[in-house]
Amino acid sequence: MRYDIAIVGSGPAGLSAAINSKIRNKNIIVFGNDNLSNKLVKAPSIDNYLGFHDISGEDLKDKFKEHIDSMGIQILSKKINSIYAMGEYFALMSGDEMFEATTVILATGVEYGKPIKGEEEFLGKGVGYCATCDAPLYRDKKVAVIGYNKESKEEANFLSEIASKTYFIPMYKKESLVRASDELETSIEVINDRPIQIHGDNLVNKVEFKEKEIDVDGVFVIKDSASPKSLVPGIETDGPHIKVDINMKTSIEGCFAAGDCAGKPYSYIKSAGQGQIAALNAVSYLDKLKLKNKK
Amino acid sequence: MRYDIAIVGSGPAGLSAAINSKIRNKNIIVFGNDNLSNKLVKAPSIDNYLGFHDISGEDLKDKFKEHIDSMGIQILSKKINSIYAMGEYFALMSGDEMFEATTVILATGVEYGKPIKGEEEFLGKGVGYCATCDAPLYRDKKVAVIGYNKESKEEANFLSEIASKTYFIPMYKKESLVRASDELETSIEVINDRPIQIHGDNLVNKVEFKEKEIDVDGVFVIKDSASPKSLVPGIETDGPHIKVDINMKTSIEGCFAAGDCAGKPYSYIKSAGQGQIAALNAVSYLDKLKLKNKK
Ligand SMILES: Cc1cc2nc3c(=O)[nH]c(=O)nc-3n(C[C@H](O)[C@H](O)[C@H](O)COP(=O)(O)OP(=O)(O)OC[C@H]3O[C@@H](n4cnc5c(N)ncnc54)[C@H](O)[C@@H]3O)c2cc1C
Ligand SMILES: Cc1cc2nc3c(=O)[nH]c(=O)nc-3n(C[C@H](O)[C@H](O)[C@H](O)COP(=O)(O)OP(=O)(O)OC[C@H]3O[C@@H](n4cnc5c(N)ncnc54)[C@H](O)[C@@H]3O)c2cc1C
Repeated sequence: MRYDIAIVGSGPAGLSAAINSKIRNKNIIVFGNDNLSNKLVKAPSIDNYLGFHDISGEDLKDKFKEHIDSMGIQILSKKINSIYAMGEYFALMSGDEMFEATTVILATGVEYGKPIKGEEEFLGKGVGYCATCDAPLYRDKKVAVIGYNKESKEEANFLSEIASKTYFIPMYKKESLVRASDELETSIEVINDRPIQIHGDNLVNKVEFKEKEIDVDGVFVIKDSASPKSLVPGIETDGPHIKVDINMKTSIEGCFAAGDCAGKPYSYIKSAGQGQIAALNAVSYLDKLKLKNKK
Repeated sequence: MRYDIAIVGSGPAGLSAAINSKIRNKNIIVFGNDNLSNKLVKAPSIDNYLGFHDISGEDLKDKFKEHIDSMGIQILSKKINSIYAMGEYFALMSGDEMFEATTVILATGVEYGKPIKGEEEFLGKGVGYCATCDAPLYRDKKVAVIGYNKESKEEANFLSEIASKTYFIPMYKKESLVRASDELETSIEVINDRPIQIHGDNLVNKVEFKEKEIDVDGVFVIKDSASPKSLVPGIETDGPHIKVDINMKTSIEGCFAAGDCAGKPYSYIKSAGQGQIAALNAVSYLDKLKLKNKK
């Protein structure tokens, strides 16, 4: 089946895109995660979302959840690894599953904080963002998982079944650091040190830390949001952001972007506003396409 | 006193700009009206403002009101008639009062519906948007007030004290039409007919209706939102909209725009999102200016 609109991301941008697409009777699929957005639930007190004063991120998440629930919108808890423009439609890959949609709205957020030295240089040459996709390449080899979120533990566990040696490097806050090994396979070695650089020749061969080094064949960097270019090959970017015009159109026809991934300011209501603009423009793109195909 | 940011309009765009400017500790003034936005209170049921499902415009207005109240933001119930860029600051005129601000955020909404034939042609040549400003010109002359909102009655009453003859042409819904004369001076003649065209030679001399004509020296068209060009002389527009870039900057430095007046789609959350972007960019403009003046 081919969806009218695939929405990648379940933060305010993706959710606003979803409700607006649904109101326009489009057949949609939304990829994201169960708690909607890690950035959303983390906010202690939000003052700048017009209509809600001094609300916690957790409570605002509940409001958003109620809204999509009452409109019958479901979030598919799946990570999209790559999106290919096929001309007539887009192919969205999640592990080895494929989804088809006529238009795509990117609402993936951005990773705050800089990439690790060497991360971008060795992308595709030993550095990857999706263990489930690339794991077979590392059978009986040594891999490191640099994890920015809790889901990264699952990726590490999965890799440990295949690789000869798996390291796990938690990049999140201290409190969770100590408990890092809790949900990890015992064979996995946790490194509580800051990675400084990913080294290699042609391919990755080493991760350098403040206090030591480890030899590895592959490094998986597991973040909430991958870089736009690695998600959508060929898309035009402006630094870490996807290039958009005022209608939230990207450089690829039929592909729209909204929220943090489309540029600053990083904030909820700006993201929700752009999600709506993206959705309405996707709808008018679909309508024009339908008219053209009728002729 | 000179304000940091003057916000013109109290719909979702203006209010969102206000809360975001206030959070950044800027000294602001907000012009608008007591019920915030006529378009807001009119909406029967709103589904597309993320966080509120199936809420009435009246209820959403109350949420917005609570929000600004708890932040100590006040709306000045005054209409701004013209805004002049003075180089270092902006002069905002309301009748014969003047306000000064270093930056301006235009959040005036748009008038849905087309101008009357001749309205734009004779603007400044007998057609005006502000009775309090131009009334002295029409002492002992004949004027017509074409009223799109309730406030237009006040303008008609005011004119009737000066003009020799005042006509009032209500342009709003039938129900209110019948009661048009309720709050009007008895000397005012109400015309319950559609104006087709404003005629003139060099200056206005006639209004043509479906079924009759009247001779007049001046025509006041009283709408919630005036055309951007008549409000801010010299501003670049794109049809009825103010030209903006992705940061909500207009063609005039220090002047930003957000919401309906900055283009389609016409909607609440898009307006609120843009109001935020405009405010944050006004703030960074102010910060840069401060730095420059220090040197
Ligand atoms: C602690 C903290 C406090 C904050 N406080 C405020 C505040 O008070 N006010 C304010 O306006 N902003 C605040 N922000 C910023 C705000 O969180 C972001 O601007 C906002 O969440 C961006 O929304 P978004 O929809 O663009 O992306 P996000 O909210 O980041 O959501 C993106 C979603 O997409 C998912 N995703 C990404 N890639 C994929 C993929 N490939 N496949 C499937 N799903 C994917 C992610 O898992 C995530 O769920 C705060 C941020 C933080 C971290
Ligand atoms: C019946 C109806 C139903 C709608 N339903 C929906 C809906 O369900 N969902 C949705 O998203 N949108 C809806 N809309 C559209 C929505 O109302 C607008 O997009 C939105 O109000 C625009 O916000 P804004 O802040 O740009 O301008 P507005 O809300 O129009 O506010 C502008 C304000 O500025 C004031 N102003 C203008 N000029 C001046 C001046 N010179 N000096 C001082 N003050 C000034 C005006 O009086 C007004 O109060 C609806 C509109 C209508 C009419």
